Amino acid sequence: MPRYRLTVEYHGGPFVGWQRQDNGLSVQQVLEEAVTALCGAEVRVHASGRTDSGVHALGQVAHVDLPKAFPAETVANALNHHLRPRPVAVVACVAVADDFHARFSCVERRYRYRILSRAAPPTVDAGRVWWVRRSLDAQAMHAAAQVLVGTHDFSSFRAAECQADSPVKTLDALVVSRAGEEVHVYARARSFLHHQVRNFVGTLERVGTGKWTAEDVAAALAARNRAAAGPTAPPEGLYFLGARYPGDAMPVDPAPEPQAPRS
Amino acid sequence: MPRYRLTVEYHGGPFVGWQRQDNGLSVQQVLEEAVTALCGAEVRVHASGRTDSGVHALGQVAHVDLPKAFPAETVANALNHHLRPRPVAVVACVAVADDFHARFSCVERRYRYRILSRAAPPTVDAGRVWWVRRSLDAQAMHAAAQVLVGTHDFSSFRAAECQADSPVKTLDALVVSRAGEEVHVYARARSFLHHQVRNFVGTLERVGTGKWTAEDVAAALAARNRAAAGPTAPPEGLYFLGARYPGDAMPVDPAPEPQAPRS
Repeated sequence: MPRYRLTVEYHGGPFVGWQRQDNGLSVQQVLEEAVTALCGAEVRVHASGRTDSGVHALGQVAHVDLPKAFPAETVANALNHHLRPRPVAVVACVAVADDFHARFSCVERRYRYRILSRAAPPTVDAGRVWWVRRSLDAQAMHAAAQVLVGTHDFSSFRAAECQADSPVKTLDALVVSRAGEEVHVYARARSFLHHQVRNFVGTLERVGTGKWTAEDVAAALAARNRAAAGPTAPPEGLYFLGARYPGDAMPVDPAPEPQAPRS
Repeated sequence: MPRYRLTVEYHGGPFVGWQRQDNGLSVQQVLEEAVTALCGAEVRVHASGRTDSGVHALGQVAHVDLPKAFPAETVANALNHHLRPRPVAVVACVAVADDFHARFSCVERRYRYRILSRAAPPTVDAGRVWWVRRSLDAQAMHAAAQVLVGTHDFSSFRAAECQADSPVKTLDALVVSRAGEEVHVYARARSFLHHQVRNFVGTLERVGTGKWTAEDVAAALAARNRAAAGPTAPPEGLYFLGARYPGDAMPVDPAPEPQAPRS
């Protein structure tokens, strides 16, 4: 059966998350129903990673096997036709070999978290950013974030319901930068624990407001205890940016907020 | 009575437009009701310019007289409190002299129009961009846009219901640039005719797809006839960016899409 790699964009707001669940509509369900509408068959769509309820994606990667071959562009256009008016779209589609697996072949995932830092609440961007009323020191947040980069036991940043075998992960990049009234936190790793990025952000926000120092972040990491780190940032600021597979181009990380010279 | 200048941001989607109307909720109404909730008085809020139903604002400017003086920050925070959960926010507030008038003192308005140019429909940006499936030549659009800059009779780009005394306006800048999958059209002038920016965009889209040339745009302008120009682009791509008053800093226009060297 011909296999297709799909790059999927979605607004997480109306969904219970990526994965099919009994309590509401999932991105997986609407994609699988669109495939069924295209080819008549019941299919399973596999993603590089699950996203939680309310989390958005700009470059989720999924694969699906179709009962017969279509041109990749036809698959994308037909799925987009059947997906409407749901806020889910196939932004790229290519035929791939049988051994491509969106989850098991994936070697890297990337996320961006958007914080709107100002006194006024979001309007045009409501549901798309985490609104933090206080001003944030993005330089201090970036410096503290570097404490977390590398191979660590991330138990302090792991949701209780996390199903990973081990809390040890290697974080390859954690970059904090400013974009106008927003502060962005970018994370790149082979894989992440459940809520790991949102728990990083909830902790770094404390650094941004001056409540915590980089030393406090190091202590929270060393504690290997969820209660030692900051709260879980809300889902609406989180974007699954992309997934990388063998043969894909390497991503270019964003530039961090320029650090003040040491005095 | 103390007068305040408000910088107002809103998502145009849920509103019939800026101005109070009998057929639905306007931005003006929710702002005036928020002021009444703050100070008890019935007030009129004046804006630099009306926006149509569905049009967004990042920097609408309005003024209001309050029955007693409050610190400007208190006014902004209290209005934002009363405006929620409507997608309207006061992002800046300053006390101004009695002779400041948001509409009559305004010397310049700026707009941005966002076109999403790709095969897949918008998801995260649904309701915030005009989706054009075809690819657009932003260089050609910018070159053609320069035909419109200057003082002209803009009858070809004026809505039938436009209430301006004259169709002659001076367009100071019309800049087309690319931002990833989006093409942005930026317009700056002392004032605009009704639908003028959206009619520019509907016309320039024809240039972007190769259907029209810059000469066709010049001919449409010269015709002084609405039927000679392109269609009105939809409201959801349009953003009122800002208004300038005597003493304000001059805005910096965006850079246009780099033009190919002449062969």
